[in-house]
Amino acid sequence: MSTAGQVIRCKAAVAWESGKPLSIEEVEVAPPQKNEVRIKILFTSLCHTDVYFWDAKGQNPMFPRILGHEAGGIVESVGEGMTDLKPGDHVLPIFTGECKECAHCLSEESNMCNLLRINTDRGEMIHDGKSRFSVNGKPIYHFLGTSTFSEYTVVHVGQVAKINPDAPLDKVCVLSCGMSTGFGATVNVAKPKKGQSVAIFGLGAVGLAAAEGARVSGASRIIGVDLNPCRFEQAKKFGVTEFVNPKDHNKPVQEVIAEMTGGGVDRSVECTGSIQAMISAFECVHDGWGVAVLVGVPNKDDAFKTHPVNLLNERTLKGTFFGNYKPRTDIPAVVEKYMNKELELDKFITHSVPFSEINKAFELMLAGEGLRCVIRMDA
Amino acid sequence: MSTAGQVIRCKAAVAWESGKPLSIEEVEVAPPQKNEVRIKILFTSLCHTDVYFWDAKGQNPMFPRILGHEAGGIVESVGEGMTDLKPGDHVLPIFTGECKECAHCLSEESNMCNLLRINTDRGEMIHDGKSRFSVNGKPIYHFLGTSTFSEYTVVHVGQVAKINPDAPLDKVCVLSCGMSTGFGATVNVAKPKKGQSVAIFGLGAVGLAAAEGARVSGASRIIGVDLNPCRFEQAKKFGVTEFVNPKDHNKPVQEVIAEMTGGGVDRSVECTGSIQAMISAFECVHDGWGVAVLVGVPNKDDAFKTHPVNLLNERTLKGTFFGNYKPRTDIPAVVEKYMNKELELDKFITHSVPFSEINKAFELMLAGEGLRCVIRMDA
Repeated sequence: MSTAGQVIRCKAAVAWESGKPLSIEEVEVAPPQKNEVRIKILFTSLCHTDVYFWDAKGQNPMFPRILGHEAGGIVESVGEGMTDLKPGDHVLPIFTGECKECAHCLSEESNMCNLLRINTDRGEMIHDGKSRFSVNGKPIYHFLGTSTFSEYTVVHVGQVAKINPDAPLDKVCVLSCGMSTGFGATVNVAKPKKGQSVAIFGLGAVGLAAAEGARVSGASRIIGVDLNPCRFEQAKKFGVTEFVNPKDHNKPVQEVIAEMTGGGVDRSVECTGSIQAMISAFECVHDGWGVAVLVGVPNKDDAFKTHPVNLLNERTLKGTFFGNYKPRTDIPAVVEKYMNKELELDKFITHSVPFSEINKAFELMLAGEGLRCVIRMDA
Repeated sequence: MSTAGQVIRCKAAVAWESGKPLSIEEVEVAPPQKNEVRIKILFTSLCHTDVYFWDAKGQNPMFPRILGHEAGGIVESVGEGMTDLKPGDHVLPIFTGECKECAHCLSEESNMCNLLRINTDRGEMIHDGKSRFSVNGKPIYHFLGTSTFSEYTVVHVGQVAKINPDAPLDKVCVLSCGMSTGFGATVNVAKPKKGQSVAIFGLGAVGLAAAEGARVSGASRIIGVDLNPCRFEQAKKFGVTEFVNPKDHNKPVQEVIAEMTGGGVDRSVECTGSIQAMISAFECVHDGWGVAVLVGVPNKDDAFKTHPVNLLNERTLKGTFFGNYKPRTDIPAVVEKYMNKELELDKFITHSVPFSEINKAFELMLAGEGLRCVIRMDA
């Protein structure tokens, strides 16, 4: 029996208030409206951003809310006017969109869509300003337009990447956010040439995805920088060849790296969000040709500060958002990279839990254990 | 009669002390040593850097010295082991060099040669640490390895661009420094696409050369920013289409430009050296794809400061040195651009004086009059 056009009752993990365990509830999911699709989520993984907005410190709290934005699923039904997607399509919902019409979407260089750029303050669908989720008639806020901690969710078509149906959704779901962000920062923005050296600041999941990008690019040296030496052993599996802990040195880490490399690395990628790491990541690249790429999200009041001569000596400083990938145009090809074994993803998935134990995924992340925990919706 | 291997007695303008008029003296110019050439200078032009080191405020004063670094001439004789140049070659001496052997010279991206990178503190030839100039037996310091305010000068082969002998040296001499710096900053580094908008900060000679680069690139809008409105009329001849004087607005100029352009210019080039202009030049480029290029030399204690989100929103910040041109490899082709009328130079040459009146060129520059004053050595 088709559920198209009907309200679906299903399970979702609702965050009722900040910092409290999610509660699995029976929710009602309204049918998709114009330019929307309803997706049956099969796998979702937990990213720091979910935890950050669940914790909601220093933000406008927006509760109750269904979090979740890294996921893979299958289109259940489509709203009015939909030509790009049909029921049965395998898809990844993405936290930022691509309308294909604005100046950013029409630019080859940008993925910062005017209409569907990430908006953490929006809790409703843009079509009518309403939520598609409710519990006993009470609306529940959306999160990033994805809200994948639900068996069914409604997403704007501009935030949906249609992928190869042969791709295992329990693996490629991590491409919805973190892995694409790190990998793309290296391959699309830092663009190391074969044989060049790359420094990665921060060896969490995003940093290791950036290292994976350096490995795929044929970097000769991948220097990992982290304050936590426990991360070094794991990072070896990701092709990181050398490690620097800034705490082990009584001079700035950029000087340590310059000494290790005869003047600086060819490329650096900053994945911590610490302003000091950003400055070091910039100042550790070689003059003449070095490129530093910022990925990590800083605090609101941070200021990036450097002597302009560091720039005049022909260094380049760039920032990136979602690895410069356009969600609909580019992500299907990243999935293909995994399918043809160019890009490794399995090593990022260190844990897996059934949906009923989703709070365990939060506990693992808060304890700093593992990289990605995949949540199985059918279990 | 050949002068090769002989000391040449000729006229040079000697700076005996800081800030005092140059004095035309009879100097002795020793023959070129290994990897050096002696050049008969026909035309030289005055650049701010000459005035800066003549004025010598806040520097280690190095006098007596023969200044000058924008020039065109003909090789008179060559030192031992020279294969690249021979007497009669038409050349431009350049203030920074290209050894063709170091990591920078071997990199496609860099022009910051390890051996011959600009060194304002060096007053002698690198071969033997001695000067080739003397007056009554007293050595006179070289400047930037070029010292073109002399009828004959000795230059390291790595600092000599061999050019088309048909090129008029009284015009192309300005490509030795300022015009190449500005033009290259736009065409080699900012690289605007046809139809894009470009903001130029500072409408002096270097800024107008950057505007010339924008014109040649087919920019649709060239927005000139300067605190001196007198410069706007002249800048129109250089293709600048709109003008913004930061003094006319009670908000930051980056906001004014963002409003004029629907979110920011596609490219900006900073040619003032003011730290505030550098920050504005960066923050006025469009998110998603904007590229800002720093050219102007800042004060020693300046700090470039911006919120990292300006970078994360996919802006790029770069600096450049000598327009990213490799002196020997690239400058001959820039001369060809002038020869085939792609690049206009004549409009930069606003004054001309005989060598005997070289101090008039300093007066013009100190008064802010004109762009380039060419000094005719034979007059």
